[in-house]
Amino acid sequence: MSPTRIPEATVARLPVYLRALNSLLEREIRTCSSEELASAAGVNSAKLRKDLSHLGSYGTRGVGYDVEYLRYQIAREIGLTQDWPVVIVGIGNLGHALANYSGFSSRGFRTVALLDADAARQGELVAGLKIRPFTELSAIVREHGVAIGVIATPAAAAQSVCDHMVDAGIRSVLNFAPTVLTVPPEVDVRMVDLSSELQILAYHEQRKSAPASPDPTLDPEVVA
Amino acid sequence: MSPTRIPEATVARLPVYLRALNSLLEREIRTCSSEELASAAGVNSAKLRKDLSHLGSYGTRGVGYDVEYLRYQIAREIGLTQDWPVVIVGIGNLGHALANYSGFSSRGFRTVALLDADAARQGELVAGLKIRPFTELSAIVREHGVAIGVIATPAAAAQSVCDHMVDAGIRSVLNFAPTVLTVPPEVDVRMVDLSSELQILAYHEQRKSAPASPDPTLDPEVVA
Repeated sequence: MSPTRIPEATVARLPVYLRALNSLLEREIRTCSSEELASAAGVNSAKLRKDLSHLGSYGTRGVGYDVEYLRYQIAREIGLTQDWPVVIVGIGNLGHALANYSGFSSRGFRTVALLDADAARQGELVAGLKIRPFTELSAIVREHGVAIGVIATPAAAAQSVCDHMVDAGIRSVLNFAPTVLTVPPEVDVRMVDLSSELQILAYHEQRKSAPASPDPTLDPEVVA
Repeated sequence: MSPTRIPEATVARLPVYLRALNSLLEREIRTCSSEELASAAGVNSAKLRKDLSHLGSYGTRGVGYDVEYLRYQIAREIGLTQDWPVVIVGIGNLGHALANYSGFSSRGFRTVALLDADAARQGELVAGLKIRPFTELSAIVREHGVAIGVIATPAAAAQSVCDHMVDAGIRSVLNFAPTVLTVPPEVDVRMVDLSSELQILAYHEQRKSAPASPDPTLDPEVVA
């Protein structure tokens, strides 16, 4: 773990670099230049070198980066060399998909419990775990030292689930429900909006299908 | 649609602003200052004003932004005032969740077909649509003018599905499979890595639990 906090934008790119390094390793590539790694990660190489310098990782002149070692450095920086017990609340289709998502377990995230408020679902086996009542949340957090709570409930239930998570001692929440959550300052929430990426694609698609032209309705107004 | 391409980082924040504006409207807030909107969106207000200036949107001095009008401007800029026919391939748990996700349809994305290679799944009704054979992809793309393809298959099938989408004329692909896809330059791919956000949370969680300290194993090496 590096001595100082690294910039938030760099933190957000570390998982991308890790994925790129994993795919290089799958192709049995042991060393790579910053250009190769940048291309695999889809960023420019100057930005990549800057980002990695925050980790104290500079590669070796004429050789480049040792893929395996850099992967270890990034995994350690993110904290993936630790064990992260995770609880998933809301076992509908999305909760099912998350419970079965191989990308979680392969990155150090261990799902220790699946919780659902619906009594009819309880005892059902999903990804090797029995669905348990939501009322057991606090006991499960204590027992397993759960650090991260994943919310996959409908939007209407998400804030209440989040409040219970915070009361139970969870300080990091990953929210898949399409609603903004309010939490105390010591709690981190990240929201995955499944439609954001579709919107970004639509922006580009629109520009492919219609060449850009000035829009007379967009008159600059006075600054607020 | 503004005359020039706006920066990619701004494009990526437009869905966030749109979500914030929607939540202000739900609370019947009709005008807001750049500070209020920035706070609802979780960005700093200088960045917000810069971003919105790319859209020719400056608010009104002493009044701020008209929430409804700004929402329209952003929706038009992204292209959400158009109709976007979408096809989802791979109707496992994640495909089911995406087909039922209200956040897609409410933002102008219309799922016109669900496709799966598994013959046993065909004819099954999901979110009001019958699962159809993957072999019908080209015909469906032609019939509905599908612009965006969503891949929710296992990683091993994703590249082949993507190749078929490109052959069928799809130029924008949203990939949920945990693998990097190769496409021709005219095709845009965006990848949703469900574990990325969990990794970013782990980074912060790690720093909460252990105060930062210098790491002697991180010796700067020579620049590659």
